[in-house]
Amino acid sequence: METEVSLELQRLSQQLQQSWKIVRTPRMKAILKIQDIACDAMRSYLRSEGFIELLPPIIGPVTDPGIRGAKQVTFDYYGREYKVMSSAILYKQAAMSGLGKIFFMSPNVRLEPIDSAFTGRHLVEFVQLDLEIAEATYFDAMSVAERLLCEAVNTVRDTCQSELEYLNRNLPRLTPPFKKLTYDETLEYLRVNGVKMRYGIEIPWDAEQLLSKLVGEPFFIIDYPRGARGFYDREDEKRPGILRDFDLIYPEGYGECASGAEREHRYEKVLARMKETGEDPRKYSWYLEMLREGIPPSAGFGIGIERLTRYLCGLEYVWEARLCPKLAGIHSP
Amino acid sequence: METEVSLELQRLSQQLQQSWKIVRTPRMKAILKIQDIACDAMRSYLRSEGFIELLPPIIGPVTDPGIRGAKQVTFDYYGREYKVMSSAILYKQAAMSGLGKIFFMSPNVRLEPIDSAFTGRHLVEFVQLDLEIAEATYFDAMSVAERLLCEAVNTVRDTCQSELEYLNRNLPRLTPPFKKLTYDETLEYLRVNGVKMRYGIEIPWDAEQLLSKLVGEPFFIIDYPRGARGFYDREDEKRPGILRDFDLIYPEGYGECASGAEREHRYEKVLARMKETGEDPRKYSWYLEMLREGIPPSAGFGIGIERLTRYLCGLEYVWEARLCPKLAGIHSP
Repeated sequence: METEVSLELQRLSQQLQQSWKIVRTPRMKAILKIQDIACDAMRSYLRSEGFIELLPPIIGPVTDPGIRGAKQVTFDYYGREYKVMSSAILYKQAAMSGLGKIFFMSPNVRLEPIDSAFTGRHLVEFVQLDLEIAEATYFDAMSVAERLLCEAVNTVRDTCQSELEYLNRNLPRLTPPFKKLTYDETLEYLRVNGVKMRYGIEIPWDAEQLLSKLVGEPFFIIDYPRGARGFYDREDEKRPGILRDFDLIYPEGYGECASGAEREHRYEKVLARMKETGEDPRKYSWYLEMLREGIPPSAGFGIGIERLTRYLCGLEYVWEARLCPKLAGIHSP
Repeated sequence: METEVSLELQRLSQQLQQSWKIVRTPRMKAILKIQDIACDAMRSYLRSEGFIELLPPIIGPVTDPGIRGAKQVTFDYYGREYKVMSSAILYKQAAMSGLGKIFFMSPNVRLEPIDSAFTGRHLVEFVQLDLEIAEATYFDAMSVAERLLCEAVNTVRDTCQSELEYLNRNLPRLTPPFKKLTYDETLEYLRVNGVKMRYGIEIPWDAEQLLSKLVGEPFFIIDYPRGARGFYDREDEKRPGILRDFDLIYPEGYGECASGAEREHRYEKVLARMKETGEDPRKYSWYLEMLREGIPPSAGFGIGIERLTRYLCGLEYVWEARLCPKLAGIHSP
């Protein structure tokens, strides 16, 4: 097994050593054209809804801790440890507190475990469209997420017919609203389909992929239990233990599209949640100071651009959606 | 002097500890609105000229060495040293070789020396619009650069009148073409104005700033001598020792706007130039392999978005143009 993995890694590695050459293939040109059109469509939609686009944060003293077993890039910043953003969620809240409706194209790096190189859905560097809306509920955020995805899909369908044909991709038109399954309903749905999983954890990749194949259209999983997510997902006051959060799942087995939530923004609550999830509050000093002074409630989400491209183009591997992609354990350009 | 610097650093540091709060001021809202409008105008212009926008590279085994005394962020990448992009110039050439006319919004990190915190024009993290054009001369690239700047300036003038008024900014309308001074002419111009500098080096900040004040409109400095720039700036075959490159300079003392060149893309020549500039070719293995297999000639440039914003808004400090800005030696959010 060890040998199989290392042989597979070698094969991928050889292929990616020449990733600078892949960009010359008609296939890659079609993929990148579709990606560009999709990003442009999403920007136009968000602009029409009153969002402002900011330059993204790149590094900081602290970044999102909720990255499922991946490691962050840390480095010496004039005598202190800083990190490359693994997700800029804390900065989104700062920006939202002044500007109301914001987004940025966030460059993220996550040093994933080596076996992630073969999942077809993990990249070490990727970009997410990260947005936040002041005074919004998670239902408001889901409404933006589904319209955003519809904009991307339908615009690509309308303007990239020859590229989709070249990729042999039959991309169905989408219309909102999308179905919503609670976490509890999702577990029951899985159980009926022969998959048992423990209550209280994030839904594992393989189960998520199965759901993504079975449901037949994009859908939301909402209301995760408290233990499963970061300290910034807000707990429902009327349903203790249930978070007001969501994932948006692609159909056809393409898995997670977007992940979002209503934010817990009250200082005391965040502090308690940090302790619960084993985070050291001292690391988050600026963030906690900001919360103590007070910011508006908000909701938001992030949507990975390479995974979106994978879905739009019907790609087997997410790394096909990026110039010189970085995969865990592979020393490519 | 030491004490003065450290007092000044302390003062700036205190101010930036609460940089998350600055985004709530009407001033900052006006600045970020103008930045967003300018980026949108530049994107529209480039799209209309047939450019495709890509997701930017974030990390890699090697990044641009030409960063004037700043240090790169390095980290352990599965057992090898990787870097956060200080400039993605090598990747631009890869992308151009497949797609012809490309650009991306490139997230860059440069650990500048501590005294750069006070120049008003340096940031540790920033974004540049980085573009590359296959089969183009540096005159073609300059033509795109000046039209790009005109688009940004004139669109902001037309659509952000109230923001410009709030900032008390009188932003003059621009029309191409801009004046071009050779490096030699620039040194002569400086000499006439009482500034002597040694032939063969980059033009120092203070001299550049003086020029930026004196010339009265945006202008290009072209044809730097070979010792002054990176290995990728192409030497003029008919004028040995002279590079086919340029800087675009803002008026009113705002200094450098864009920096670009025709690329040296021939394997043997690049190798010789690397040796000349003290670069270790082994570090550039993928890049050199790409050049050996052959890529088209090209020209391109990068334009810093925060510096553009500084000029558009008439700001004293470039850090005012960014959410939670990072300045050398200051541990702000």
